[in-house]
Amino acid sequence: MERTLVLNSPEKIGQKVRLCGWVATRRDHGKLVFIDLRDRSGIVQIVGGEKLGGLRPEDVVEITGTVRERPEKMVNPKIPTGKVEIEGEEVKILARAKELPFPVDTGGLDVNEELRLKYRYLDLRRPRMAGNLRLRHKLIRFIRDYLDNQDFVEIETPVLTKATPEGARDFIVPSRFRSGKFYALPQSPQQYKQLLMVAGFEKYYQIARCFRDEDPRADRAYGEFTQLDLEMSFAAQEEILALTENLFKDIAEKVLQKKIWQFPFPRISYQEAMEKYGTDKPDLRPNKKDVDLLAFCFVIDFPLFEWKKSENRWDAMHHPFTAPKEEDIPLLEKEPGKAHSYQHDLVLNGFEVGGGSIRITDPKLQEKIFEVMGHTKGQIKQKFGHLLAAFEYGVPPHGGIAPGIDRFLMVALNEPSLREVIAFPMTAGGQTAVMDAPSEVDPLQLKEVGLRAAGS
Amino acid sequence: MERTLVLNSPEKIGQKVRLCGWVATRRDHGKLVFIDLRDRSGIVQIVGGEKLGGLRPEDVVEITGTVRERPEKMVNPKIPTGKVEIEGEEVKILARAKELPFPVDTGGLDVNEELRLKYRYLDLRRPRMAGNLRLRHKLIRFIRDYLDNQDFVEIETPVLTKATPEGARDFIVPSRFRSGKFYALPQSPQQYKQLLMVAGFEKYYQIARCFRDEDPRADRAYGEFTQLDLEMSFAAQEEILALTENLFKDIAEKVLQKKIWQFPFPRISYQEAMEKYGTDKPDLRPNKKDVDLLAFCFVIDFPLFEWKKSENRWDAMHHPFTAPKEEDIPLLEKEPGKAHSYQHDLVLNGFEVGGGSIRITDPKLQEKIFEVMGHTKGQIKQKFGHLLAAFEYGVPPHGGIAPGIDRFLMVALNEPSLREVIAFPMTAGGQTAVMDAPSEVDPLQLKEVGLRAAGS
Repeated sequence: MERTLVLNSPEKIGQKVRLCGWVATRRDHGKLVFIDLRDRSGIVQIVGGEKLGGLRPEDVVEITGTVRERPEKMVNPKIPTGKVEIEGEEVKILARAKELPFPVDTGGLDVNEELRLKYRYLDLRRPRMAGNLRLRHKLIRFIRDYLDNQDFVEIETPVLTKATPEGARDFIVPSRFRSGKFYALPQSPQQYKQLLMVAGFEKYYQIARCFRDEDPRADRAYGEFTQLDLEMSFAAQEEILALTENLFKDIAEKVLQKKIWQFPFPRISYQEAMEKYGTDKPDLRPNKKDVDLLAFCFVIDFPLFEWKKSENRWDAMHHPFTAPKEEDIPLLEKEPGKAHSYQHDLVLNGFEVGGGSIRITDPKLQEKIFEVMGHTKGQIKQKFGHLLAAFEYGVPPHGGIAPGIDRFLMVALNEPSLREVIAFPMTAGGQTAVMDAPSEVDPLQLKEVGLRAAGS
Repeated sequence: MERTLVLNSPEKIGQKVRLCGWVATRRDHGKLVFIDLRDRSGIVQIVGGEKLGGLRPEDVVEITGTVRERPEKMVNPKIPTGKVEIEGEEVKILARAKELPFPVDTGGLDVNEELRLKYRYLDLRRPRMAGNLRLRHKLIRFIRDYLDNQDFVEIETPVLTKATPEGARDFIVPSRFRSGKFYALPQSPQQYKQLLMVAGFEKYYQIARCFRDEDPRADRAYGEFTQLDLEMSFAAQEEILALTENLFKDIAEKVLQKKIWQFPFPRISYQEAMEKYGTDKPDLRPNKKDVDLLAFCFVIDFPLFEWKKSENRWDAMHHPFTAPKEEDIPLLEKEPGKAHSYQHDLVLNGFEVGGGSIRITDPKLQEKIFEVMGHTKGQIKQKFGHLLAAFEYGVPPHGGIAPGIDRFLMVALNEPSLREVIAFPMTAGGQTAVMDAPSEVDPLQLKEVGLRAAGS
């Protein structure tokens, strides 16, 4: 007899079934004992006698029994298996459970978050969290199908790589073979995806893990996050925006069953956004409390540079690979602050959920941008020589966008934190869920990579 | 006029088209000039006059022209567009190309590999390499569809995590918030996937990036690799093997168009493999030179431990989470070397392409295994306390397998190295492709994480 998922049971009245799962609840009515058995498909009621008596919540059991129709007044309309129950005949306890540190049948947002993360493997049993992760899987699957059908190719890029200038702090990884040298974890696959355009793939994407050692914020996880990284050759900015809005419209309607406020998504210039809404991340919903409405817009025509006061220099508003508008190139020399770019941000309900741009492909112009940002010729060659060299061998015009998966899901599901849509997130202090990291390493391992503690 | 891919052209005779791509070749016949234009879909011949004269190989161009049928004797049966050519009317050069450091229309295996990796963005233009990456995409897509249809859920696990005892050296990442402490990059998501079983997902998979700081070998990339990480609850070993062999049979036939030697895959005990073939990775092909035949087998009934001479102790043959056969548990105390386990290896044409096992779920037994391996109670608690704790809250029986994506593709495509199926692999010496990493970092950044060079 094959194992049956509980949700299959209604059509199996009279049949013998074998179920495996967790004891969700137990109710004793004298000699009659009821348990709700939970597996990944849902819950079903088991009725039995003494055999069920010793079971405790969250014990793992294998139950063999017969599917029976419930008497009409006992039907539970709240669950898909509510018309049946299983008469438990054999009960095998596969594993016992101690009392849990918190209940897992509630939403869980009232439980201390450090405790939730310490016992994440229990926290993920709650239907809300399991549902969020299943929905995340469905979302990513939908994105992949959508792009695959448009002839995009997903290509994996390295995690052990070189530092990139995305504006945040890199995580670094000491090298054993080259003592005193380091890899960096990518803040995004930006340069690799541009190199893939030089290689001729034309339509690339990747569900990519990115790493930033930035102080956490409510809408920014510490450490790592996941983005849909996407790049296209021979595409104008409007083609990238059209692809993006069609993708997210379908996601909203087919994956999330939510309404879109305006379609096509409004294109708002940075200047208009700042003047009209006082922010470059406007929330266009008529009622900000409407959690089932997704109000997307694109913000475009950003300034190319912003003044970085702390370093007394111009810095790229997006990143240094963003193309200036052609007509503004003459401004670079004397009035870089007035130049506008082909940056585009995807904004949803007041959150930036994605950013991108048309890229620079002229190596001379790329060098010029680095110079405006204060890099010397030597630094440019050392840090970006490979990219400038690549642009000498036949580079197609290209651009892309990178919507954040965690960020988008948090906003679309109206969750209070990114951690509600990530399986094993870190705490705000950079402590991993469940496992005790960061932790100390054997001094021998440090020695192998040519390092020692600064104080030692 | 929308941009047309070259492969669409045969059905467009008489129509005006706009093509974008790379100049693959140019042939001058007096006033008549022919170029082969290459885009991601293939190649088409453009015929024209002076306008094409200035084009050089690998220039990026946009060409507007009319599709014409070729005279019968000019038809090229070798390419899908061989019955047509484009009469080039307008030619726009989008980017120039210098002379390439090596040809990209050959197989490329004769070119110096360091040079190929330095210019990987050009090396990937060769049809063999572009084809390998497209096939890799198709393979991974097929795996995902297959598992999604069987109700598996893909869940992303952390890259910044704690050291795990998979037998290889960890890459470590210094923490800024906790000076002197380190994250480790995962050698596999082993413990996270077991925790996801405790969480109740029952059927998990992930196309997972894994990291090992091991000296490279022909069949092992330095640094990082990708595996299909898969785990199931309430499944016996045979269910895992059956799922795996059905998946790989379909991959062989539907993705790779290759023949399978024996199905179901033979199950060979470790002892039989060693006695009969002198290896636990037997190549079962009747003719070892038959590159279109995939001879899979499972090797099972491995010893639980092997003696680690260098450390004078027992070490897990697979990893310490592998369950011993029930009947061998009494041997653990006095004759651990005689105990057998529920390890299973997937072997293809003489290469191990995947390994897995049924896991231990009894915390007492798990502790015992660690003790046999020479860990003290204190070490066990410090390193694995979280997993032993998780097993106290209702753990389902579970097991899994983890086939290597790069490894499988290399063997199945009969490529001489893993680097032929990875977009941007490292050199054997741990140097990244294209980019100059590992490299030095600002001493300030080292100071931020509480480190300094051992010699300074």
